Amino acid sequence: MSAVLARVRIVLAGTSHPGNIGAAARALKTMGLQRLVLVAPHAFPDPAATAMAAGADDVLDSARVHETLHAAIGDCRLVLGCSARPRGVALPTLDPRAAAARLLAEAASGDVALLFGNERVGLSNEELQRCHAAVHIPAAPEYSSLNLAAAVQVLCYELRVTALASATQPAVPVEAADVATHAQLEGLFAHLEQALSEIDFFKGRAPGTMMQRLRRLFLRAQPNEREVLILRGILADAQRMARLAGAAGNASARAEHTAQERKDR
Amino acid sequence: MSAVLARVRIVLAGTSHPGNIGAAARALKTMGLQRLVLVAPHAFPDPAATAMAAGADDVLDSARVHETLHAAIGDCRLVLGCSARPRGVALPTLDPRAAAARLLAEAASGDVALLFGNERVGLSNEELQRCHAAVHIPAAPEYSSLNLAAAVQVLCYELRVTALASATQPAVPVEAADVATHAQLEGLFAHLEQALSEIDFFKGRAPGTMMQRLRRLFLRAQPNEREVLILRGILADAQRMARLAGAAGNASARAEHTAQERKDR
Repeated sequence: MSAVLARVRIVLAGTSHPGNIGAAARALKTMGLQRLVLVAPHAFPDPAATAMAAGADDVLDSARVHETLHAAIGDCRLVLGCSARPRGVALPTLDPRAAAARLLAEAASGDVALLFGNERVGLSNEELQRCHAAVHIPAAPEYSSLNLAAAVQVLCYELRVTALASATQPAVPVEAADVATHAQLEGLFAHLEQALSEIDFFKGRAPGTMMQRLRRLFLRAQPNEREVLILRGILADAQRMARLAGAAGNASARAEHTAQERKDR
Repeated sequence: MSAVLARVRIVLAGTSHPGNIGAAARALKTMGLQRLVLVAPHAFPDPAATAMAAGADDVLDSARVHETLHAAIGDCRLVLGCSARPRGVALPTLDPRAAAARLLAEAASGDVALLFGNERVGLSNEELQRCHAAVHIPAAPEYSSLNLAAAVQVLCYELRVTALASATQPAVPVEAADVATHAQLEGLFAHLEQALSEIDFFKGRAPGTMMQRLRRLFLRAQPNEREVLILRGILADAQRMARLAGAAGNASARAEHTAQERKDR
């Protein structure tokens, strides 16, 4: 069981209060998790973090710190983002129990990440767009503001309970062998935007909204590595056609121009 | 649902740190609980409690304070005590989920209590002896020391989830309203195969296996109607490029042919 929990990293993005980082480290350790990752924390290391970690100094000391979210989750097969409220970004939403089951199923085959945003503003839309799905703790609508470390505790608790329950019966990973990593998916999205631009799909509009929709669609499908290669093969052929259309168009224009010149002579 | 959660009181006995009382108040309120009861707190009221309560001041302000545990739970039908470790007192032990179910079942008929001990020493044997059963959060054996407010959060979370599940309110289908029909998906797949053929993606191979892979990918994503239209828009632009490439190529060939003819004359 600990082997699968060891593949779950808890990522805290832009945390303001170092005390919450320490309290989160404690929450992880009580539930048998070890991997804490910090993205651009406002203050770390910090005495307040150490104080709140209590006996979980080892988790705190081994926490990795990154400047960008991409660096923190680039090698992950599945990324779920904890979000307090419905957003403009219409991601599929899981409750903590379903999220734990999905994370552990994927962790059987590789690293996965559970992402928490800043205390005050949560995850930004840009951060959420990098997630396969959102996780929503079913808080009271009148007051849904869990403390950051409390939210981490709830999710780590569900992860542990789920891991304990499945420890007796080994889960069969469903077509999990080669799910694309975050970095591979980002490569696909960059290629997609480039190809769509070349075939003139955007028609002068900014690609932002459309690319968000397409990201959601493909993240939902959770493509494997092979499928990413297939999709990129399609994009490459579409680009080839666009370039041929441009090049042949130019050649044609040139040839017609030459023909016209000859006629004019 | 709130009616039954309103009959659950969270009792903190002999709490040392007022900050934990405030954090516990916040944990209650986020999960829709309201009744916090304090037995002989070391410091209360206290600015640290108010600070940690964040927006849950109302729960803190209405907290009842008693000198004895008996006064705090005397009118309760069921009392469960949260305990970190097996004790000399051989009480039946429930996990948080079973505890939540039992508390809510009893709360249908009257008041119930969930009891938490001092941060450092937990519930004393004398306090546990007043409980119908112990509740044990399945923490990691190597480090089982949850922060008091974190333990309160986990139990309140299980109470809320259990209450929500039994409230039999129809679940809101998540973005299910406009999932594409079978016919719309078949239209997409036919269009996809046609477009892939036109951009020469198949390169002479039979499309069968590749189309099966792509069907699986898109079916897994369960696209909605809007997304099907977007994908077909992309396919239409790729086809347009392929036709331009062909037509321009032909035009270019024709123009060059004409030019050549002129030159030959």
